[in-house]
Amino acid sequence: MTSTPTPLGPVDPARIQEVLDGRWAHVRRDAREQLGDPEYAPVYGESVAEARERVTALSAKLAATGRVALGFPEQYGGSADAGGSVTAIEMLAFGDLSLMVKAGVQWGLFGGAVQALGSERQHDAYLPDIMSFALPGCFAMTETGHGSDVQQLRTTCTYDPATETFDLHTPHQAARKDYIGNAAKDGRMAVVFAQLVTQGEGRGVHAFLVPIRDEQGRPVPGVTIGDDGPKAGLNGVDNGRLTFDHVTVPRDMLLDRYGQVAPDGTYTSSIENETRRFFTMLGTLVRGRVSVGGSAGSATKLALEIAVRYGDTRRQFAAPGEDREIVINDYLVHQRKLLPALAKTYALHFAQEELVSTMHDVQSTGDVDEAAQRELESRAAGLKVANTWHATRTIQLAREACGGAGYLAENRLPALKADTDVFTTFEGDNTVLLQLVAKGLLTGYRDAFGSLDGWGKAAFVAEQVRETVLERTAARGLIQRLVDAVPGRDDDVAFTDRGWQLKAFEDREKHVLDGAIKRLRRGAATKGIKPFDIFNDVQDHVLATAEAHIDRIVLEAFVAGIERTTDPAARALLGRVCDLYALSTIEEHKGWFLEHGRLTPTRAKALTGAVNDLLKELRPHMRTLVDAFAIPEAWLNCAIVAEEPARQEAMAAHDATLRARGAEPQATATATALEMAPAQ
Amino acid sequence: MTSTPTPLGPVDPARIQEVLDGRWAHVRRDAREQLGDPEYAPVYGESVAEARERVTALSAKLAATGRVALGFPEQYGGSADAGGSVTAIEMLAFGDLSLMVKAGVQWGLFGGAVQALGSERQHDAYLPDIMSFALPGCFAMTETGHGSDVQQLRTTCTYDPATETFDLHTPHQAARKDYIGNAAKDGRMAVVFAQLVTQGEGRGVHAFLVPIRDEQGRPVPGVTIGDDGPKAGLNGVDNGRLTFDHVTVPRDMLLDRYGQVAPDGTYTSSIENETRRFFTMLGTLVRGRVSVGGSAGSATKLALEIAVRYGDTRRQFAAPGEDREIVINDYLVHQRKLLPALAKTYALHFAQEELVSTMHDVQSTGDVDEAAQRELESRAAGLKVANTWHATRTIQLAREACGGAGYLAENRLPALKADTDVFTTFEGDNTVLLQLVAKGLLTGYRDAFGSLDGWGKAAFVAEQVRETVLERTAARGLIQRLVDAVPGRDDDVAFTDRGWQLKAFEDREKHVLDGAIKRLRRGAATKGIKPFDIFNDVQDHVLATAEAHIDRIVLEAFVAGIERTTDPAARALLGRVCDLYALSTIEEHKGWFLEHGRLTPTRAKALTGAVNDLLKELRPHMRTLVDAFAIPEAWLNCAIVAEEPARQEAMAAHDATLRARGAEPQATATATALEMAPAQ
Repeated sequence: MTSTPTPLGPVDPARIQEVLDGRWAHVRRDAREQLGDPEYAPVYGESVAEARERVTALSAKLAATGRVALGFPEQYGGSADAGGSVTAIEMLAFGDLSLMVKAGVQWGLFGGAVQALGSERQHDAYLPDIMSFALPGCFAMTETGHGSDVQQLRTTCTYDPATETFDLHTPHQAARKDYIGNAAKDGRMAVVFAQLVTQGEGRGVHAFLVPIRDEQGRPVPGVTIGDDGPKAGLNGVDNGRLTFDHVTVPRDMLLDRYGQVAPDGTYTSSIENETRRFFTMLGTLVRGRVSVGGSAGSATKLALEIAVRYGDTRRQFAAPGEDREIVINDYLVHQRKLLPALAKTYALHFAQEELVSTMHDVQSTGDVDEAAQRELESRAAGLKVANTWHATRTIQLAREACGGAGYLAENRLPALKADTDVFTTFEGDNTVLLQLVAKGLLTGYRDAFGSLDGWGKAAFVAEQVRETVLERTAARGLIQRLVDAVPGRDDDVAFTDRGWQLKAFEDREKHVLDGAIKRLRRGAATKGIKPFDIFNDVQDHVLATAEAHIDRIVLEAFVAGIERTTDPAARALLGRVCDLYALSTIEEHKGWFLEHGRLTPTRAKALTGAVNDLLKELRPHMRTLVDAFAIPEAWLNCAIVAEEPARQEAMAAHDATLRARGAEPQATATATALEMAPAQ
Repeated sequence: MTSTPTPLGPVDPARIQEVLDGRWAHVRRDAREQLGDPEYAPVYGESVAEARERVTALSAKLAATGRVALGFPEQYGGSADAGGSVTAIEMLAFGDLSLMVKAGVQWGLFGGAVQALGSERQHDAYLPDIMSFALPGCFAMTETGHGSDVQQLRTTCTYDPATETFDLHTPHQAARKDYIGNAAKDGRMAVVFAQLVTQGEGRGVHAFLVPIRDEQGRPVPGVTIGDDGPKAGLNGVDNGRLTFDHVTVPRDMLLDRYGQVAPDGTYTSSIENETRRFFTMLGTLVRGRVSVGGSAGSATKLALEIAVRYGDTRRQFAAPGEDREIVINDYLVHQRKLLPALAKTYALHFAQEELVSTMHDVQSTGDVDEAAQRELESRAAGLKVANTWHATRTIQLAREACGGAGYLAENRLPALKADTDVFTTFEGDNTVLLQLVAKGLLTGYRDAFGSLDGWGKAAFVAEQVRETVLERTAARGLIQRLVDAVPGRDDDVAFTDRGWQLKAFEDREKHVLDGAIKRLRRGAATKGIKPFDIFNDVQDHVLATAEAHIDRIVLEAFVAGIERTTDPAARALLGRVCDLYALSTIEEHKGWFLEHGRLTPTRAKALTGAVNDLLKELRPHMRTLVDAFAIPEAWLNCAIVAEEPARQEAMAAHDATLRARGAEPQATATATALEMAPAQ
């Protein structure tokens, strides 16, 4: 049942790079050519204060290049290129991740909020200084007590017609703004999210533009600024805490595109429903989440390139009866670590590229179609989860694959791990986001403004969900053809049949989803169960639907990407990489496929062999696959990569010694080595 | 098929603590009472230089307490208590992990090598100053080019009868000593492992005691000292590099307990076989590996206590129709993260305790039984792997379970993650160690001195392995009774039947092992396959045997630990925790059990329900289970734990607001929150 493909020939990485670079190739090219400046490379072992100083200076330097303007309106010197702006962030992530995050805070979150939620008047007043970094700012949403549950924010902003000002106040410590980038050191202003109250009535969360420091950098009266201090990583980003003690905010500092307060305190909005208004306001800020997913991908590629190149020159243990030592990439178990991770990185790259493209198109059309907007947000959430968890796992794996060397800062991996570690919980906690994706699937995106944590609507969901129909997300025609072409009896189909792989992914998603719906219906129909318990009892099942869905859209994006590949050799190689992504994913969920009769025990065992065959086949192409990421050598900034030639020389000398001493004794000698590998 | 147990009553953590404290309870008690000094707590945000200064001073302070003497001979003021010495290190790991590692290097590796490999004369000359830290030293084994493959070390030490001295030399850069603790700053001497050459003949790797710095701390002539610089963590440990340029070493500086060189250069040893001699020398150093496993366990317990206590007071999202917010430990998926990890931590604790006990007994008997020694080393390797990978996964999971707070240094988790990350690759790379364990299983520990990376001996292994008989490792009689008591048809047996669980673990180990042997035989019988390929083609299968074996001995140790528990309530609770360890492990390998007909699809689905039932049952006891670790409050050193009362107060205030505003609107409000969880 394993395939007998035409053997892969040599592949020019440039041919693969063309496909990976995709729609914003010009932005990637520009970054590779212009951001080679060693200044953009990460620095190791500096103090928190030093890191912050350096990254602040770098941010100003970056602003001066004008590259941060991509996403802003043309009348302010921008390009109104949403997709380009997140691609630029993704490229920035190959350098110092503190700079990437600082840029994301200043131009993505702070600037993005002013752009999306502010009026023309406010754009004129602030965007130029924001773009030039003359006005560093914060995105003050999260509170110590409420992160994921944004609409529960406790900070209040109460309007007083007498003075025509707002009173911004932090009622208790749990309501202080926390983890706020740019707050501890640089921020002059902050977009503060607070409960708007006017004429004695709560109007829900709105955003206000609030000065927090004066020209001398001192906190303004009423604003207390704390420092989150050292973190696991990203020490170049000055995260801090903001507390407001009845701070007076002028009426015109409400970012009032979606809600206005008249001098007399009358509230008006083009969107009646409060929740819907809030949703619309926040929906405009999806870029941040998309950027995090892309940046996680860049860090993952760096880690894999380092591990693959080290594994190609690092050797340990003599081959018995041969006068050579084994390069560690030749070990099956080492391939089992690196290659599936590499395949998934490719798959996620294509899915991310497609997401950016969709986001760009949605945001470029004047009036946003609501269903499209909702699906975009769900997709952005799902791929943020997949990209960031994959980054956390893969960077850890790469660091371990480099042994002791992987623990030294000079080899980059520790910083990659530490700096990206927060990605899984910021811009939305991954588990909470999975729930958001699941809710969209359970309701077919119909439950626009319902309780997205779901607990409140068990019955509602149960009723409204009808027959589940999976909507294909990419290359629809092609995928339909591939699926239709699969012969009847599964057991006869080669594992490498793309249609069979696609069917297996669809089948898993549909079945898991149907099962979750059935269980929710049953719960809703049972007397005396609290809504919370109805959902909580099946929460693991509900999240599994989201995971199965994400796996499927990622595979579909990979298939579409291969379809765009014209060079035959590159296309063939990508095809095998896609096989590895598909089969290692099915292998990972083997339990489910067996449990539900989708795989026979015999076929399940054969699957392991098929994956190992793919590893053998792809082993010679590992280096090509990382070279295709086209990461400029200068950006790697990694000692063990720089020492490649020296290592090869030393190892050649060592082989000579081995030949001189004869190989066999060594094979035996390695014995005890393993019993007491060394300790430091 | 899920069980209907007698409901668990309240349990006094102290009753569980008594069982966990075990044989070296007095050492644990002493540490809790005497090491409460805040000085021993980790410090965050300091520079590498500051960290090194502080930890050096702390090491001296620790030496002054005399606690480091536990493992040394009585005539030097020690207690000759091997088990006590590793237990003391395990307790030290609750504090600053840099201090734990520095202590491990000075008294475990450096001091331990002089004690184990040196003669009485050398003990008299050096042990007192080593114990008092007057003589800081290094364990210089690893080279840049060879870590795991110790017997391939390239450093040479050549004897010259004319001068009656050795010539210690580093032939090329790949042979420099690397990652050496105490080298960059403090070390005055080093135990250097090098190829001994005398009368023109190589005698294999031996250890030499070599001065590397003078009284003023300057490198001695011929010794070049490099600095490994900043690392992912453990920045209080001064790891460095040593290069020797024909350094003269006096004849009496060879640690000569197992091999002596006469003035005329004649080599003598009580052990004929070179490999066997090397094996014996290194076998005496097993303590280091045991200590790493225990220390990983301590870090894991800290991380889980922080996450569990935060999860008991951290709340997010209102319960629909109720005027309260949900505590995150009440979410099923949060329990799915924390509780199985907690159960495995308990299981590993009992296995580690048993390992320490075995090691103590083996090392306390004068002449070591070779089979026992070999099995001890295999067990130490296996539990080092299990403990350190479990620590890496669990600390990561705990940090994510604490959200943004988990990323701040003040909450301890970042340091726990960064400091322990190297545990998976030092004291033996985990993957290499798994291979060592597997080799022991494949050969039934008969292949004493064969190639332990195995490649060399495919045929040999294939021939010699006969019928596989699993040897039970703990509570043999009890386990036999439990297994015998299991009724015939699996499907009728409750998942919580201990005998069924034990049988499932044994069955998996035996079957995986038999399969690996069959495949190796087949490979060996096939013409034209290189020995390397015979093993490499089944390497993943071979490592799976080691994993199945470790899972089984860990379960057996847990069962034995419960048997030692006298308090009925504590015993009942530990029984449920053991169920969770056993069932979540089977669930993790569900694919295998289905593939091999050990679980029917129906029963496999029921298993998920059984695990969820256990989570519900154990939820109320989460806090009890971490309290039983008896970690002094002062050692936690974690802001979110210290802020518990404040958080509860703020949340009470918040509930009042919720009640005032009425709950239902909130349930809806949380909706959009999830769509745009915040970004920092």
